Amino acid sequence: MNRDSSAIMRPIGIFDSGIGGLSVLNSLKKSLPHESYVYLGDTARLPYGTKSKNTVVQYALQAAKSLLQYDIKLLVIACNTATALALPELQTLLSIPVIGVVEPSVQLALKITQNKQVALIATEATVASRAYERVLHHYLPQAKLTAKGCALLVALAEEGLLKHTITESVVRYYLDPFFSLDHQPDCLILGCTHFVFLREVIEKVVDGRMQVIDSADTTAAAVKHYLSAQQLSVVDTTETPQTLYLVTDHSERFMRLANLFSEEGIPPSAIQHIDIINI
Amino acid sequence: MNRDSSAIMRPIGIFDSGIGGLSVLNSLKKSLPHESYVYLGDTARLPYGTKSKNTVVQYALQAAKSLLQYDIKLLVIACNTATALALPELQTLLSIPVIGVVEPSVQLALKITQNKQVALIATEATVASRAYERVLHHYLPQAKLTAKGCALLVALAEEGLLKHTITESVVRYYLDPFFSLDHQPDCLILGCTHFVFLREVIEKVVDGRMQVIDSADTTAAAVKHYLSAQQLSVVDTTETPQTLYLVTDHSERFMRLANLFSEEGIPPSAIQHIDIINI
Repeated sequence: MNRDSSAIMRPIGIFDSGIGGLSVLNSLKKSLPHESYVYLGDTARLPYGTKSKNTVVQYALQAAKSLLQYDIKLLVIACNTATALALPELQTLLSIPVIGVVEPSVQLALKITQNKQVALIATEATVASRAYERVLHHYLPQAKLTAKGCALLVALAEEGLLKHTITESVVRYYLDPFFSLDHQPDCLILGCTHFVFLREVIEKVVDGRMQVIDSADTTAAAVKHYLSAQQLSVVDTTETPQTLYLVTDHSERFMRLANLFSEEGIPPSAIQHIDIINI
Repeated sequence: MNRDSSAIMRPIGIFDSGIGGLSVLNSLKKSLPHESYVYLGDTARLPYGTKSKNTVVQYALQAAKSLLQYDIKLLVIACNTATALALPELQTLLSIPVIGVVEPSVQLALKITQNKQVALIATEATVASRAYERVLHHYLPQAKLTAKGCALLVALAEEGLLKHTITESVVRYYLDPFFSLDHQPDCLILGCTHFVFLREVIEKVVDGRMQVIDSADTTAAAVKHYLSAQQLSVVDTTETPQTLYLVTDHSERFMRLANLFSEEGIPPSAIQHIDIINI
């Protein structure tokens, strides 16, 4: 299958409730440095992790429609809550491929786990959706998932306390119960893109007792694999790849956190405010 | 001035971004037990404290219009961020009186402070709005306000960690800088309705070094004073007062937190989902 170059050069769309998805964008840029990206953060309505399925599906569809206007070749749902609650709807309604963050992490957990005991930390909504369990049991019905909602970790990441002792206390508060289980999990999925920014503290607390699975890296690997299989990857180009950031609420907070979380820094001119509600 | 009883019996409207305003409702019910209340929590778009002025003004106007349909006699903005960013707009556009949570706390601080040094903890948006400074300086230009954004305290309250050691560490993290100031404040305004639920831990950390001002209690006192002056108070009635809870996202989380935060408990039948965006 040969694709024409104009199809290949179309950007990859990335959608997140706010800024956590920048961890996925960081991994994508490392993995696929020649691609262009359009990132949409629904900062006017974040976070999604404490909201209901109906609300999240409605928000995700509005965001996806907005990104389609940028002629994206692929949509990455870089938000665990949106993936858990809205991926089937998006895959049904959109004419382009849609990749979420749940399946790639579960696939890696299946390769890693020796005792079929998998731990998950995520937002309350992701845990309540049981999306990780469904995917895990589809491939390995006898596997057991133990999940914990960790809302405070989102707030700590957004406060910029990425390595603070308070963060370590909170991580211990959430993770300690895993270590007193009869059948202790041997791998831990970071099921919220915010948690990637706290990975150093999480690894310290885990202390080798579980292998940590980073949903940003696994998702970037899945996107790379898909584009390569479809011959849609930008392999080499003389054009400089572009990244555009769209936000539904253009706040000073987004600027500050985006620059904290983005590995390359973001020029203010690359950020645009858009209205996705009245689209 | 004599008011007819039908005007008096109209409910009081209370608007908050989500659940923090229940602290104001708790105080109102203690202070004015014969009144009926309609509480609106914009749970589909919470929190407001990290969003921009334009977005918060738009959300607050939609919420206020929705509450007007319940024939409220007075609107209480039980959210510091919404008060700080949208009170003038609401007071201009609505035909009923609107009371926010900023002015009552500043009035009490003015009575309490001996050294004219006032401390404020609030959301980032409230601090950035400088609304407390404007009101304070209007009455006492030589007063000094030292303000600190405390986003994590919102998350801790919503996680139900009202008295946990982690909460104490976080409160110390935020408050310690006040105690190393050259001119140490002698009163501390809890400028976010969520913080009222953490008052016990805050008082422990403050340890008598500042007098703590609770925006829920001060606002309830202001509402009582206003209704009494206007002869709009329900003084005595054979009718059982009602409280209706309206939410823009009806989640399990709201139910759980509302019951944690509400002193009387909330029957599920008292909660209704409403759409305020397309009003």
